[in-house]
Amino acid sequence: VNTTAVNTTPGALMLAEIREQPDVLARQLDTELERIRSVAAHLRAARPTTVLLAARGTSDHAAIYAKYLIETTLGLPCGLASMSTFTAYRAQARYENTLWIAISQSGGSPDLIQSTQRAAHCGATTLAITNSPDSPLASTSQMSISIEAGTERAVAATKSYTASLQAIWLLVDLWSGGDGSAARTLTDHMRRQVDRDDVLEVASRYRFIDRVITVGRGFSYPTAREGALKMMETSYVGAQAFSGADLLHGPVAMVDTACPVLVVGAAGMTADLLAPVVDRLHDRGADICVVGPPSVQARLPAAIRLLTPEGVDERLAPIVQIVPLQVLARQMATDRGHDPDQPRGLSKATSTR
Amino acid sequence: VNTTAVNTTPGALMLAEIREQPDVLARQLDTELERIRSVAAHLRAARPTTVLLAARGTSDHAAIYAKYLIETTLGLPCGLASMSTFTAYRAQARYENTLWIAISQSGGSPDLIQSTQRAAHCGATTLAITNSPDSPLASTSQMSISIEAGTERAVAATKSYTASLQAIWLLVDLWSGGDGSAARTLTDHMRRQVDRDDVLEVASRYRFIDRVITVGRGFSYPTAREGALKMMETSYVGAQAFSGADLLHGPVAMVDTACPVLVVGAAGMTADLLAPVVDRLHDRGADICVVGPPSVQARLPAAIRLLTPEGVDERLAPIVQIVPLQVLARQMATDRGHDPDQPRGLSKATSTR
Repeated sequence: VNTTAVNTTPGALMLAEIREQPDVLARQLDTELERIRSVAAHLRAARPTTVLLAARGTSDHAAIYAKYLIETTLGLPCGLASMSTFTAYRAQARYENTLWIAISQSGGSPDLIQSTQRAAHCGATTLAITNSPDSPLASTSQMSISIEAGTERAVAATKSYTASLQAIWLLVDLWSGGDGSAARTLTDHMRRQVDRDDVLEVASRYRFIDRVITVGRGFSYPTAREGALKMMETSYVGAQAFSGADLLHGPVAMVDTACPVLVVGAAGMTADLLAPVVDRLHDRGADICVVGPPSVQARLPAAIRLLTPEGVDERLAPIVQIVPLQVLARQMATDRGHDPDQPRGLSKATSTR
Repeated sequence: VNTTAVNTTPGALMLAEIREQPDVLARQLDTELERIRSVAAHLRAARPTTVLLAARGTSDHAAIYAKYLIETTLGLPCGLASMSTFTAYRAQARYENTLWIAISQSGGSPDLIQSTQRAAHCGATTLAITNSPDSPLASTSQMSISIEAGTERAVAATKSYTASLQAIWLLVDLWSGGDGSAARTLTDHMRRQVDRDDVLEVASRYRFIDRVITVGRGFSYPTAREGALKMMETSYVGAQAFSGADLLHGPVAMVDTACPVLVVGAAGMTADLLAPVVDRLHDRGADICVVGPPSVQARLPAAIRLLTPEGVDERLAPIVQIVPLQVLARQMATDRGHDPDQPRGLSKATSTR
């Protein structure tokens, strides 16, 4: 779909869409809030007892965010769906009280469409969250929300990710009885994240890496996952994302002085849970970069830092904290001589079964 | 706990426990079947409508196996629990009809114990699957199953993994009305996997790698995950595991001719789903090793192969297919001058919050 784009500057498309994010979030609030409110009202009435989330790639990280948000706000048991349960194993499921949420920028991947249809057939209420309100996924779902990110032309998704996160936050906030107004603070925070020079230092330090580890916990874990994917897609580094606890249960053995680690810190209890992880990483001699607000930086010692704003609600912070990692991925790619708008071996919409 | 072990041969403990696996599986069938049958009968009566699985490290891969098995056999919505929902965010959950299964070799990690207690407080039925029937986790759970792997001394878990998988398979088979007898075929298959020379060729080819990608789909995905963890823990390579579909949604861009890929193939529809993934990997010039039975090997072209037996039920195959990857991880580690029984930075039981 981006064959018509003629770019003289590598990564120009990706950078333009990174910069567009504050406007996308503001526009979504203006145009989609009422639609999301009506979906939330329907869900309050339907009273699902379980939520399953189906997604791939960047949208899978939006699904992980949704899982933490639904579990901590609504208290419902929540899981990520395995699409092969339907596409490979043709399972019969008992989904009578289950809400099935499918998240996809394009709304076109066959496995997502097929498993959503099967979930509905097995009794689930189905909801699509897409950037393509006329897509097969949106059409086949009982309800749908459009994230209104506008056409996304860069292969590496950026604005569709933050727009998905805000739509999910609005849905859960309205579902739990809130009014969605806290999201109005996001646009200003985002605007200050988009153009930043401190990323240049980190990109320079990572100029020759083959591997990088990203670490998060709780609400900062989807940011660690999405940051790693951006670096894999655009800079072709072997980026591995871990929850801090999972890292300690084995993988930490591979960390040494040649292994850079990017820790995405968040406020509150999460910083307490990440502190012993950072200690262990220092024991292993890791080169650590912490992404987070000053108060969290003060508790997690690191060689380099990417500051994010103080005082953002932990549940909204993932929408802000991913931005420096998007900028970093684009900068690393161009520094290393790649065009992140034309990553090797990828096209904009991926179809899998 | 293994400070008393004096090993002259690196990896002697790990190799001994790999070789012990057929006997462990046979013994578990002899001594634990009735206990598992009574738990299954209780679950049939309790009729949970949702299942959550809580685990870390190797046990997390047993949990992924359990998720596929429960979804495809029982049709219940099933998810992996996020322990930070309780330990960091103190969530109130509505778990009245939820079965919470905690899986842990040691049964001692504080986050697992605390979140299991919280799950019970929120209404869940709790079941522990451990190798330590007297552990805090087993004691705090309403029901428990002992996998009876015997004391595991090697830091890199092997026999506790396959013993957990068999216990889970027995539980789900009995829960769904089966008699568990199909597991009796496993011991012979396992015995033929334990000592094998073809692994030497793969270990030699991987002598100098820094990174490796492992790929599975459906029931072969937990094997890809666990194989990657074994290589991270013992050989310190950056091993990244993907579902074949997820790999295509972005990460495939980082694959090139310098990147070895280990594809864990399985019978049935899964081979159909992996075929286009292997095609894409060939397009990217990857060096591919396929793990699988001859019929699957015939459909997935590869530079090198690790054969596994033909005709094993796809749901039992993960118990057999992990063995060559355990042997490979141990061989790679010793070839590279490491002692997999004393991996750097790890101890046998990991405590996280």
